[in-house]
Amino acid sequence: MSGPRWTPCGLITLTTDFGTEDGYVGAMKGVMLSLAPDLRLHDLAHAIPPQDLVRGAEALRAACPCFPAGTVHLVVVDPGVGGARRPVVAVAGAHAFVAPDNGILAPTLDAIAAPGDGPVAAWDIARHPFARPTRSATFHGRDLFAPAAAALAAGLASPCALGPPVALSPSPAPLPQPAIEDEPAGATLAASVAWADRFGNCVTNLPAATLAAFTGGAHATVRLPGGRSIPIVRTYADVAPGEAAALVGSGGRLEIAVRDGSARETLGLSRGDRVALLRG
Amino acid sequence: MSGPRWTPCGLITLTTDFGTEDGYVGAMKGVMLSLAPDLRLHDLAHAIPPQDLVRGAEALRAACPCFPAGTVHLVVVDPGVGGARRPVVAVAGAHAFVAPDNGILAPTLDAIAAPGDGPVAAWDIARHPFARPTRSATFHGRDLFAPAAAALAAGLASPCALGPPVALSPSPAPLPQPAIEDEPAGATLAASVAWADRFGNCVTNLPAATLAAFTGGAHATVRLPGGRSIPIVRTYADVAPGEAAALVGSGGRLEIAVRDGSARETLGLSRGDRVALLRG
Amino acid sequence: MSGPRWTPCGLITLTTDFGTEDGYVGAMKGVMLSLAPDLRLHDLAHAIPPQDLVRGAEALRAACPCFPAGTVHLVVVDPGVGGARRPVVAVAGAHAFVAPDNGILAPTLDAIAAPGDGPVAAWDIARHPFARPTRSATFHGRDLFAPAAAALAAGLASPCALGPPVALSPSPAPLPQPAIEDEPAGATLAASVAWADRFGNCVTNLPAATLAAFTGGAHATVRLPGGRSIPIVRTYADVAPGEAAALVGSGGRLEIAVRDGSARETLGLSRGDRVALLRG
Repeated sequence: MSGPRWTPCGLITLTTDFGTEDGYVGAMKGVMLSLAPDLRLHDLAHAIPPQDLVRGAEALRAACPCFPAGTVHLVVVDPGVGGARRPVVAVAGAHAFVAPDNGILAPTLDAIAAPGDGPVAAWDIARHPFARPTRSATFHGRDLFAPAAAALAAGLASPCALGPPVALSPSPAPLPQPAIEDEPAGATLAASVAWADRFGNCVTNLPAATLAAFTGGAHATVRLPGGRSIPIVRTYADVAPGEAAALVGSGGRLEIAVRDGSARETLGLSRGDRVALLRG
Repeated sequence: MSGPRWTPCGLITLTTDFGTEDGYVGAMKGVMLSLAPDLRLHDLAHAIPPQDLVRGAEALRAACPCFPAGTVHLVVVDPGVGGARRPVVAVAGAHAFVAPDNGILAPTLDAIAAPGDGPVAAWDIARHPFARPTRSATFHGRDLFAPAAAALAAGLASPCALGPPVALSPSPAPLPQPAIEDEPAGATLAASVAWADRFGNCVTNLPAATLAAFTGGAHATVRLPGGRSIPIVRTYADVAPGEAAALVGSGGRLEIAVRDGSARETLGLSRGDRVALLRG
Repeated sequence: MSGPRWTPCGLITLTTDFGTEDGYVGAMKGVMLSLAPDLRLHDLAHAIPPQDLVRGAEALRAACPCFPAGTVHLVVVDPGVGGARRPVVAVAGAHAFVAPDNGILAPTLDAIAAPGDGPVAAWDIARHPFARPTRSATFHGRDLFAPAAAALAAGLASPCALGPPVALSPSPAPLPQPAIEDEPAGATLAASVAWADRFGNCVTNLPAATLAAFTGGAHATVRLPGGRSIPIVRTYADVAPGEAAALVGSGGRLEIAVRDGSARETLGLSRGDRVALLRG
């Protein structure tokens, strides 16, 4: 298998749950710059909550499509480090990804796939030739992933030179898909809170297109877990400070927000909570 | 209006309240690098407390004057996103700024203005030609501000090519100005705590020059809200660990500090608290 | 004294306790880029807990050896700023360091020293020619350290041109060294928790080599402060989620971990706590 043609542009993004109070991010940067000092490294997000694959996946999905073709995305949220999960390189939509095969890439790969694309091309990099000679059991970011990313971005190796082809594992789907439910008062569209961002905006798993198909452009409201209903608006400034509303966020999904405040704190929402869309 | 001559140096700084647990900062970086992959992006501060214009303004004011001429400063603390506030580009002191017109630039523009400078040159960029074709209602940082900053820094457009000239809004002034007050024991100079930094140092709105004019170089003390008086010293190391003192901080204003500790926590100070300077 | 030959590669790393909610990191970057706009600045760690020399030293020690020869490491955790501690430049193992002389460099210098190396070459930079003309009493990072780092990395000055040679202060050693202790049940090897990382892994001051010499490769367990014993494993995935174990971490020292959790929180460990290795 020769794999897709892919040409690096010299950019690497870094997404981790390493924080910036330890030397872990720095170690990865040093490894990459030792292979190729001119690489342009760009921090994407390092404060992903520890081992939170959902938040890590979403940070990548939100940012990746904005980057130019040829970017390498190094993504290390890796609760299974040292265990059976495979380290992989994947190529899709003119981007390359270096990550553990734990589902963290799935939302991004779905988002950038073009119609008619087949399965994502991927390779198992457990024994790639640029790995550090001594591999720790707990820090593959430094010893395995970072040198692979640097080799790709610097053009020292093509993806298919880093290991045998492999099929990516199916992504875990921790939340029930949005679904239409029949209630005495009529059909509702039920969705789930997927995460809260730094501002406390609670992003659901309901895409804007599904929402629009349900409402047909007509008026609708959102019912929160305790029964309270809030309006659907265009932007935060459409309601008064401190008031709650639902809107389509910048990632294209319904989110629950409190203007100038935190919906997570004010409304007590957390991952998995169900919200329901009602027509009229 | 042709605007001031301004030549980019290829540097962009980023100041936001986006944190690094989401993909928002990464999305802005990707947008900029897609326009010009060789731009040199430098993170200035991303942990500004959500929607805190005072802290965001101060981070920029503290750092901006240290940067070389031709730097573009992208500043996105934007509680009014999607509402009536204008998006602007401003040029002053050989720096360019891309930000919402919500007062966040005011302290920096004041600090870098030269005597005799007129009003700051600014342009409304709501319809600039490098904006992303689909603009979200909640993330102008990605869709509007980042591409403007990249176009400026890469020399793809001059500031006046991004929109019509506009006068910046006056800055909100949330704190009373320092003022001399008559007390039975003599005149005092009253000031306010403006913010606490990461170390818990409580920075006031009292400039060193105003302080010096009041004391005339003679001995003075600072009275805290509860009535306690603390000495004015040169640096933290001038008092014993755990002791409180006032000093002129690196930003040129009086601050209240506790050596090897947090004045905010130890003394219970917060924004708006009044402190008074007493001679003798 | 001419000092060791040292050639810059144009890279600077930044390690501070400044956080990213203030303008302090940005001010240092601006100062460096004003001296040499093409410098490649790489954030290493800025969320070191305020004034925590142990964490700052460890972040540098973990990352520094991964960087290429010729890198300049700017390290500013500086509780004694403005006091008697000296500002220094040091050169060792093809790396240059700019920092306060407060012991923060010691673990890194020990780690990268080659056998037969003499004392580390260092210079007092209190009056170096690139310092900002007006020096604050509280922010030597901006006024003294950053311009020294930039001058070195840009090749504007060699280390010995920045000030007179000086001997580095001995490092503070806050924890007792690991030691063999006789107990009724046999010899134990006692060590101390040195810090907890972002994941709550509690890293001890026990090097892997000392551990191996004690066990001779035979089975051993670790006794925690309350008397509980935990196994020594290879990686986190070797125990079930929520279970505690000891292992040799990526920095080459024994650490106490809880899989998919925080050993610091779950086991209530903190700096200085004693753990004991038992054979069998």
